[in-house]
Amino acid sequence: MSVLIVGSIALDTVKTPVEEHADQLGGSASYAAVGASFFAPVKLVGVVGDDFPESEFEFWKTRNIDAAGVQRVQGRTFRWSGEYAWDMNTRETRSVALNVFENFEPQLPESFRDTQMVLLANIAPSLQAHVLNQMRQPRFVVADTMDLWIQTTRKDLDALLPRVDLLILNDSEAREMTGDTSLIRAGRAIRRMGPKYVAVKKGEHGALLFGPDDFFSCGAYPLEDIHDPTGAGDTFAGGLAGYLAGQGADEVDFALLRRAVIFGSVLASFNVEAFSLNRLRNLTSDEIDERYEMFRLMSQFEVLP
Amino acid sequence: MSVLIVGSIALDTVKTPVEEHADQLGGSASYAAVGASFFAPVKLVGVVGDDFPESEFEFWKTRNIDAAGVQRVQGRTFRWSGEYAWDMNTRETRSVALNVFENFEPQLPESFRDTQMVLLANIAPSLQAHVLNQMRQPRFVVADTMDLWIQTTRKDLDALLPRVDLLILNDSEAREMTGDTSLIRAGRAIRRMGPKYVAVKKGEHGALLFGPDDFFSCGAYPLEDIHDPTGAGDTFAGGLAGYLAGQGADEVDFALLRRAVIFGSVLASFNVEAFSLNRLRNLTSDEIDERYEMFRLMSQFEVLP
Repeated sequence: MSVLIVGSIALDTVKTPVEEHADQLGGSASYAAVGASFFAPVKLVGVVGDDFPESEFEFWKTRNIDAAGVQRVQGRTFRWSGEYAWDMNTRETRSVALNVFENFEPQLPESFRDTQMVLLANIAPSLQAHVLNQMRQPRFVVADTMDLWIQTTRKDLDALLPRVDLLILNDSEAREMTGDTSLIRAGRAIRRMGPKYVAVKKGEHGALLFGPDDFFSCGAYPLEDIHDPTGAGDTFAGGLAGYLAGQGADEVDFALLRRAVIFGSVLASFNVEAFSLNRLRNLTSDEIDERYEMFRLMSQFEVLP
Repeated sequence: MSVLIVGSIALDTVKTPVEEHADQLGGSASYAAVGASFFAPVKLVGVVGDDFPESEFEFWKTRNIDAAGVQRVQGRTFRWSGEYAWDMNTRETRSVALNVFENFEPQLPESFRDTQMVLLANIAPSLQAHVLNQMRQPRFVVADTMDLWIQTTRKDLDALLPRVDLLILNDSEAREMTGDTSLIRAGRAIRRMGPKYVAVKKGEHGALLFGPDDFFSCGAYPLEDIHDPTGAGDTFAGGLAGYLAGQGADEVDFALLRRAVIFGSVLASFNVEAFSLNRLRNLTSDEIDERYEMFRLMSQFEVLP
């Protein structure tokens, strides 16, 4: 089955201690859509300005990403600029220009409304809800969020949570959302706010997954060099939701979600190897399968091959 | 086979945000010896003062810990006092009194010198070397260290490393030792300093293991409540070395080390559930096996049970 993805589409300017690139494709939906496209057809919802390169629409076509839900409107595309500290772990936002994103009201094409797998990539919770309201009967809803929404639109976020099957957030956001320093207690507390499952991303330390009766923990792929961490979380969410859609299971269970978390981690680990989405542009399914196998080898301690 | 363990034996006073207990059994060798004793007979080397409770010698006997290498000398036992911050992650040392430990020169009883598995628990690298010099032909040497020795006796530590098969240290120490923020690069760089294997402890994020051709990553047991983190690393090292000794393999290989890291993590996860060594005092092998199985379940994503 296919996966509907809504989120931001941006042109990013990113500076690391070694490199700087301007106006590269970015935004949560861009990363998520390409990440998901390795596993399932994607229906993309978003907005771009008249300065947005036509070539990206061509690229989406090659990746089986249906851009019928991407509005092209007058004005400039959403722009974000950030700079990473020397350790590549902390980043500072240098500027944000919402531009056409400011008045974005996602409108789903009729052909999108029956999609059963939904990824609400990172945008304001009110927009995520607005998209969900237009869906007929989604079977599984994944939502990503960020500290900004926890701090500024908490009520909207809280209202969305009971409609979400899997919430994705990072470790500091989980701690902020619950006021609890223990990630284990925080993950379980967030489940009580509504989502059946919660995935906590921990960057270099991997990810945790909480379910009604189950718990899953995985490490991160042992990368020596990270060139651009931008979009790692979005790619994780996209890879995860794409894998779930691609499996087309009648019901998403914990065993399937474990593997989806690994595929999300695999995609994210590739994404940070180059600026913007450049690594994903030439990634192959064989490379994904190979790294999935590496994940298996690096985390097993019983019944080794 | 048995495991020889040398390190500190102390009486600790520990304060957490909720509790405070004075003059409880502590020290790296105390935690490591009891951790190891669940898997193999232990030969313990250390020093205590005339104020050290005789009851601990009795306890060691019940756990098959041979204290023939523990010198009892005139004076007070080594004392350490520390306080944990509200998040239980950072701690401050309030006081250290070396006492009888100041002039400690480990002397191995003749019956100890042929032991083939050695754990040099956390003490000054010069003392660790002094013990190693008295061993006839140890087959596998595990050494634990800490930031203090990296900062103050780096030359001694560097001289010891080529004699060590497995070095254990925590994430911040690995970063400090190499000046590299990437734990992956740091772990590999430390291997080039001498040890064939390096284990990096990451607290709530689990542990990493680096070998010549292999890499292993595991999470931490999902504990909601930590009562006293003191000795977690020492217990990890003890459980790990004890498991290796208990398996009595002719050669320690990476597959065996993976499982040893899990057993070390299991032991450490129990240890933090109560003050001092209190949880280890009534721990059973069934509880250990049960938690090992939980580790397997929480980290598998293929071939589920």
